[in-house]
Amino acid sequence: MNYRMICHVLGYVLLIIAALMFLPLIAGLWYRENVLNFVITIGCTAVLGFIMTRIKPRSQTLFAREGFAIVGISWLLMSLLGALPFVICGDIPSYIDAVFETASGFTTTGASILNDIEGLSRGCMFWRSFTHWIGGMGMLVFLMAVMPLSGEHSMHIMRAEVPGPTVGKLVPRVKKTAKILYLIYFGMTVLEAVLLLCGGMSFFDALLHAFATAGTGGFSTRGASIGAFDSAYIDIVCTVFMILFGVNFNIYFLLLIGKFKDALSSEELRVFFAVIVSAAVIIAISISSMYGGFFKALRYSFFNVATVISTTGFGNADFTKWPAVAQCLLVTLMLMGSCAGSTGGGIKVSRIIVVIKAAFADIAQMIFPRSVTAIRLDGKRVSQETLRACYTYFSIYIVTLVAVTICISFDGFDVTTNFTAAVSCLSNIGPGLSLVGPAGNFAMFSVFSKIVMTLAMLLGRLEIYPLLVLVMPTMWRRK
Amino acid sequence: MNYRMICHVLGYVLLIIAALMFLPLIAGLWYRENVLNFVITIGCTAVLGFIMTRIKPRSQTLFAREGFAIVGISWLLMSLLGALPFVICGDIPSYIDAVFETASGFTTTGASILNDIEGLSRGCMFWRSFTHWIGGMGMLVFLMAVMPLSGEHSMHIMRAEVPGPTVGKLVPRVKKTAKILYLIYFGMTVLEAVLLLCGGMSFFDALLHAFATAGTGGFSTRGASIGAFDSAYIDIVCTVFMILFGVNFNIYFLLLIGKFKDALSSEELRVFFAVIVSAAVIIAISISSMYGGFFKALRYSFFNVATVISTTGFGNADFTKWPAVAQCLLVTLMLMGSCAGSTGGGIKVSRIIVVIKAAFADIAQMIFPRSVTAIRLDGKRVSQETLRACYTYFSIYIVTLVAVTICISFDGFDVTTNFTAAVSCLSNIGPGLSLVGPAGNFAMFSVFSKIVMTLAMLLGRLEIYPLLVLVMPTMWRRK
Repeated sequence: MNYRMICHVLGYVLLIIAALMFLPLIAGLWYRENVLNFVITIGCTAVLGFIMTRIKPRSQTLFAREGFAIVGISWLLMSLLGALPFVICGDIPSYIDAVFETASGFTTTGASILNDIEGLSRGCMFWRSFTHWIGGMGMLVFLMAVMPLSGEHSMHIMRAEVPGPTVGKLVPRVKKTAKILYLIYFGMTVLEAVLLLCGGMSFFDALLHAFATAGTGGFSTRGASIGAFDSAYIDIVCTVFMILFGVNFNIYFLLLIGKFKDALSSEELRVFFAVIVSAAVIIAISISSMYGGFFKALRYSFFNVATVISTTGFGNADFTKWPAVAQCLLVTLMLMGSCAGSTGGGIKVSRIIVVIKAAFADIAQMIFPRSVTAIRLDGKRVSQETLRACYTYFSIYIVTLVAVTICISFDGFDVTTNFTAAVSCLSNIGPGLSLVGPAGNFAMFSVFSKIVMTLAMLLGRLEIYPLLVLVMPTMWRRK
Repeated sequence: MNYRMICHVLGYVLLIIAALMFLPLIAGLWYRENVLNFVITIGCTAVLGFIMTRIKPRSQTLFAREGFAIVGISWLLMSLLGALPFVICGDIPSYIDAVFETASGFTTTGASILNDIEGLSRGCMFWRSFTHWIGGMGMLVFLMAVMPLSGEHSMHIMRAEVPGPTVGKLVPRVKKTAKILYLIYFGMTVLEAVLLLCGGMSFFDALLHAFATAGTGGFSTRGASIGAFDSAYIDIVCTVFMILFGVNFNIYFLLLIGKFKDALSSEELRVFFAVIVSAAVIIAISISSMYGGFFKALRYSFFNVATVISTTGFGNADFTKWPAVAQCLLVTLMLMGSCAGSTGGGIKVSRIIVVIKAAFADIAQMIFPRSVTAIRLDGKRVSQETLRACYTYFSIYIVTLVAVTICISFDGFDVTTNFTAAVSCLSNIGPGLSLVGPAGNFAMFSVFSKIVMTLAMLLGRLEIYPLLVLVMPTMWRRK
């Protein structure tokens, strides 16, 4: 392990966090609040970061294991340090609660322990939503876009932080790929903020909701979430952008460089849209009597399908009161999640496509043992390694889900609450069903459960490996 | 496809069913009941079977696909014909209900649509429990033990019917393997029946509960299941035998031929027992206040852990009233199920061991990409094919589970009911949580849901493939 290099890069991560915290500080100053919490946190983070960057690595070599270590430790540090402003100003008195809220922000989960969201200071509210935006695209991807790191090895970092079974470089250089991704991300966020402003939101609300949508996070400035604005226009804008941010960003790159045919022929994209439309229609039928007709119900069904499949977690209705079939479909979409290479969570559409195709290929092989069936995605053959990785991830995801559910269940809440809270954290959604539904929150859980769920959110966002390898003894063995 | 050979073998299956139905007929006569229902069914089945056996195959060749087809169609036929006695005598007026009950019997699920079990005629009650015994070891395995089929090819049938990732022949000849398995099965059933007789059960009750335990089925002669006898001795006998029938039968063969060390060093066996003991202890702690102390609670925790992990489904307490952690653990054990090569259902302990080991091997490979980690079970290297098969089964199982849950949810019951009913059917347990808990039953579901759950039970018992391949077009294509 190249410990010095890990420290060096982590130092930069801390410096960037310190720099990014100037934005909530400015927001706090604008609203004439006491911003001492941000000043202290920025100070500590910057000093620690500066010291760590002074540790000069003997070599810049980064292998896969260093990539995992950097990403895993970065996200833990981000959550632990990012929680400080909430605690110092007293908005969230308990440090564990604050870490939960911050991890929920960075991992773009959007699960909250706050009972009174409107009571937050403006600075903290800005920081809370801004963590979504930072976490959505990834802190390390940002680092690669702006820092002078050697390109070749930093691919390992990117691979560990960007979700999905395979990570493609859009352009040969990693640094440029990262820059393009952030430009698309930035552009779409600004566009949404402008559209929300047009819908009558204040500048502050529009910006923070755009942050939360872009990261597919789901923190709102209101306790009633998007439902508080009660505007069909705002619901539609949010629905569209939640879906857009659940799409693989490679698609946008292909659109930008004019390869429309390639972009629209993506199997993952087609399945993603097909699932959204069919789920929304079935749900709309099931809830039509509650909302005065099928077409009026579509507004709510599309919004809530988009919010769970993109793993955002905004709310405009309490779907725990919907019929069972609607709830079961929503939970299924929670497990599924969005496209690989998007800011969303979950198992990812492409993995599920690969796993199902592989299963059918295996069955075909059982019928005719001598036939060989290759699995293809977008016309390209899926390699054995990718297939194996999809299966592994799928299985680890399910096993982790069961383990988290059992851990939470010690608190004694009902089975649906425990299971959907675990799904919600692991898939980075936000709300679940029963007590953790859109109208509830996560405040009632014990400290132990909150720690487990914080880890579950990080496991979900980083797709399990970067954190899991941190606790593997072989990882730290010198070789 | 060798259609003639398939018909030929199916004919024998029907003849055996007809022959086996003489037992409930005798039971009915003994209790001086009208046994016309059995006479008619035996007549129809025997005639149909006789005609089909007259179709002489041109060759006795059986490939994997014929094996799947025979097993899949046999089990469908068994459920459809086995339901007739219930309908003809009027004990279960609806044919769909009767098919559900019969499939639940043959698949050793034990889920019931009966509100008044004590009201059944003795003949039907005998047949209902006897289906567990037939289905537990498998109809086709029985066929191979008694019929003059060429040994070489019949392995494909055995592989399709016996649960688990790999099927080992105990002895070189398939016919002899099948005989040994049935001898062990028969011996253990008799032993349990005798022990239950000693506990004060009537001969009828003892025999039928022994059938249900041996097949890990769970049908009882009482509405309150084993709880109706309210005897610690009977609870303990059932607990022990439920666990014993959840163990791979190869272990008993090894014990019989004196290879004690090989038998006891089985990793699957050790994990199985470790899981049982730890789950039972945790649950006993959580329910100790409800049953007057930890040691008294052990009787109920061990019984219910055994009943769900062996996928039997007997009840001596209503665990839907237990704390959340107990319920979550029980559902997890339902998913897991028993050992491969036992009469129990679920994903199977050995598959889960392989999947988890493979996941850790993959993570190790991520850390050191050039290292090669082989996965071993019982010291033997797990082949790539077996590993792939475990992953495929695990994934198809989860996907099927989600699909079944969604189908059932159209009935509008709560999420926990839908999900655990799906788990219960697919893992061949019997009870679930909420409305389908030990105190409930499956009577309230719609016809559509009952058909879906009947298929789910068959999918679970046959480990999905034999039924799934029946609907694959490639299966029926001439090649």
